[in-house]
Amino acid sequence: MKPLNVAVLGCGVVGSQVVRLLTEQAGDLEARVGAPVRLVGVGVRRIDAPRDVEVPAGLLTTDPAALVARGDLDVVVEVIGGIEPARSLILSALENGASVVTANKALLADDGPTLFEAAEKAGRDLFYEAAVAGAIPILRPLRESLAGDRVTRVIGIVNGTTNFILDKMDTTGAGFEEALEEAQALGYAEADPTADVEGFDAAAKAAILASLAFHSRVTAAEVHREGITDITAADIASASQMGSVVKLLAIAELVPPTGSGQQATDSADGGDGTEGVSVRVHPAMIPRSHPLASVREAFNAVFVESDAAGQLMFYGPGAGGSPTASAVLGDLVTVGRNRLGETRGAGESAYADRVVLPMGETRTRYHIAVDVDDRAGVLAEIAGSFAEEDVSIQTLRQEGRGADAQLVIVTHDATDSQLSRTVERLRGLSCVREVSSVMRVEGMAD
Amino acid sequence: MKPLNVAVLGCGVVGSQVVRLLTEQAGDLEARVGAPVRLVGVGVRRIDAPRDVEVPAGLLTTDPAALVARGDLDVVVEVIGGIEPARSLILSALENGASVVTANKALLADDGPTLFEAAEKAGRDLFYEAAVAGAIPILRPLRESLAGDRVTRVIGIVNGTTNFILDKMDTTGAGFEEALEEAQALGYAEADPTADVEGFDAAAKAAILASLAFHSRVTAAEVHREGITDITAADIASASQMGSVVKLLAIAELVPPTGSGQQATDSADGGDGTEGVSVRVHPAMIPRSHPLASVREAFNAVFVESDAAGQLMFYGPGAGGSPTASAVLGDLVTVGRNRLGETRGAGESAYADRVVLPMGETRTRYHIAVDVDDRAGVLAEIAGSFAEEDVSIQTLRQEGRGADAQLVIVTHDATDSQLSRTVERLRGLSCVREVSSVMRVEGMAD
Repeated sequence: MKPLNVAVLGCGVVGSQVVRLLTEQAGDLEARVGAPVRLVGVGVRRIDAPRDVEVPAGLLTTDPAALVARGDLDVVVEVIGGIEPARSLILSALENGASVVTANKALLADDGPTLFEAAEKAGRDLFYEAAVAGAIPILRPLRESLAGDRVTRVIGIVNGTTNFILDKMDTTGAGFEEALEEAQALGYAEADPTADVEGFDAAAKAAILASLAFHSRVTAAEVHREGITDITAADIASASQMGSVVKLLAIAELVPPTGSGQQATDSADGGDGTEGVSVRVHPAMIPRSHPLASVREAFNAVFVESDAAGQLMFYGPGAGGSPTASAVLGDLVTVGRNRLGETRGAGESAYADRVVLPMGETRTRYHIAVDVDDRAGVLAEIAGSFAEEDVSIQTLRQEGRGADAQLVIVTHDATDSQLSRTVERLRGLSCVREVSSVMRVEGMAD
Repeated sequence: MKPLNVAVLGCGVVGSQVVRLLTEQAGDLEARVGAPVRLVGVGVRRIDAPRDVEVPAGLLTTDPAALVARGDLDVVVEVIGGIEPARSLILSALENGASVVTANKALLADDGPTLFEAAEKAGRDLFYEAAVAGAIPILRPLRESLAGDRVTRVIGIVNGTTNFILDKMDTTGAGFEEALEEAQALGYAEADPTADVEGFDAAAKAAILASLAFHSRVTAAEVHREGITDITAADIASASQMGSVVKLLAIAELVPPTGSGQQATDSADGGDGTEGVSVRVHPAMIPRSHPLASVREAFNAVFVESDAAGQLMFYGPGAGGSPTASAVLGDLVTVGRNRLGETRGAGESAYADRVVLPMGETRTRYHIAVDVDDRAGVLAEIAGSFAEEDVSIQTLRQEGRGADAQLVIVTHDATDSQLSRTVERLRGLSCVREVSSVMRVEGMAD
């Protein structure tokens, strides 16, 4: 039987594991694909770089453009990452008749539609399970298993570095800097941790999840993004006191149109009566009883709510060479079978074409800690600031007395604009010494 | 565009929700399948039975055999359950050119190969995501997402009734009977709870999971099965004392061949040097830190270990009309797309053809509580019984003194035969008043 010709672009942490599995699992892969899977080339930057896997020298090439253009490839696996040359290579691979499996979240979140259109035009598959949450099968379930259901919300812990840092802060009482240093020492954070701790990585994944869950096109630039660098040990302690834990969450949710239910006072959808989507990455407190709260260390998990299925959660390692390679190989088997059957998997569907709402119009809840003067009338003044912005308070408790007096307030659902205006008002009150913590709250009954 | 003709067999708890979703989600389904999805018939026992959904009278029929044989069906959804007439109807549907989506775990675990061969022969799809763990996408990830990986173990909480009962016993200290009554009162257990509490339901699901995970044919009859009716409040308390919780687990694992590693002393694979599988359902203690320990009430979860991906967990509602219907519809979309594309999904693969090992040869660990005389030499006698069967003890602790003296022992890994022989020896010792609890231990480092 004609073998399936596979080329791998990139032979770093993930690529070397892909090459290893292609070799070690050859027998099983052949049984599952229905034809031998043959590695015909590996694009690398330097032929003689040290690698975790032995690649026959004849397969290595520093000319990936020539590799993807050779015309006899069935599948190209792109694990270089970044925008260029990855994009040009993927486009060339598709034009030259190959299907593509990629783990490139940045490229997909930045310029997915260009790739999807090229795949559509070429009549080839473009699969990318490995781009979100590593080994955890989440894109395929969203795309296929829930295809007859209506997903209403996706909440993910999709960045292992920040989860490791926040988990350390929670379990040891460490501050952000200290926890970051430990993460770096253990290899969980890079020397320049910006992409992780500022939420860029999570925002790219949020865009991909939102696009799939809501059959719309959402790019990373449309995702509201806040990182975890401002989270203090006091924030974590405050969360702990209310039985909660702080996580960096990637949230994508359907927002009802104006005039229905909770959104009655906002023009949430641009006024045309269809549902919009809110897509955002920010730290938030979630109750310890929530399934996401028990996601420890560098693990990832994605929590999905849908009309019929209810609440589902998918949990596992979110990064690492070998878990990511597992996801790549899973896609490779499907794409390979499709090639042999001269068919394609379900392409991208953006038929719902939902509008991404500005963060200000998104309804959230706040946990606010305010250091106040301990005197009569303060509570009324504070409560007044909330009332003026039409924000209703769920709980208010006083901590400490005298110079340590602090009010801790958890609000009900309100637009993010209302809430941030309320915080501004609080800062202007003479009885307020400092607004010491402002954090969103998720996963709690309103 | 030619619509996709769908017939539904059964309009009970699940069927009525399938019919509801087919109607309510019609627009989305058309966008996702690529053609309108048209409900053309619903097979029921009684036309005038009360149902949760309104079905146009013209679509109802009490002659399902004629419905599946009409020849213009693209997809038949079978949600009647049980062996007959479900099997005959599915076979007839396939012979008449329809693909089939079913939630029928009993039939699949009992006689799956007959159905798979009929689907293969007809060139049609037979999908059954809803048969295991309700709405949780687990079969598709096993079959497709992990297709390039090597699954080594699947541990599932796949029966909501028993999980509800054990969770109640854990949180309230109730005995089995009391917890069962509460489950029945709340609708989580049936009037005759045998299929659930004796582990038959879980065993069918274990057979399906093992077949998929290990590309072999495993039937329910080959699954070692123990239920939860003998679990006492004392067992739960004893588990709690060692930081564990008792769950009814469906376990399917690869067992290394004779001569390699742990299996060195056993003929685990029939002697031909390939890996065998152990498939079993029994209650077991698992540490509270294990992800499965936090699965509460009637929820289900499946924990999967594989070489490359590591540890994954899938969590969600394991039963109920609407969650199960979500899984059915997910399959329906894929099967529908395949019909339009004149292709098929990956069929069943049993190429690995692994041998199911007898329970006696399976390596497990035991937690044993023994009421003993409180006198010198007892410990040596007890330890001697373990030594004679070559079972090594991990921990041994004494509880109480005098007439209340009890020894609690946790063993290392040994064959189930060795362990049960050890328990027999203990029962024969004069210093042993009673072996008060014997339970397997899972998910703990050996």
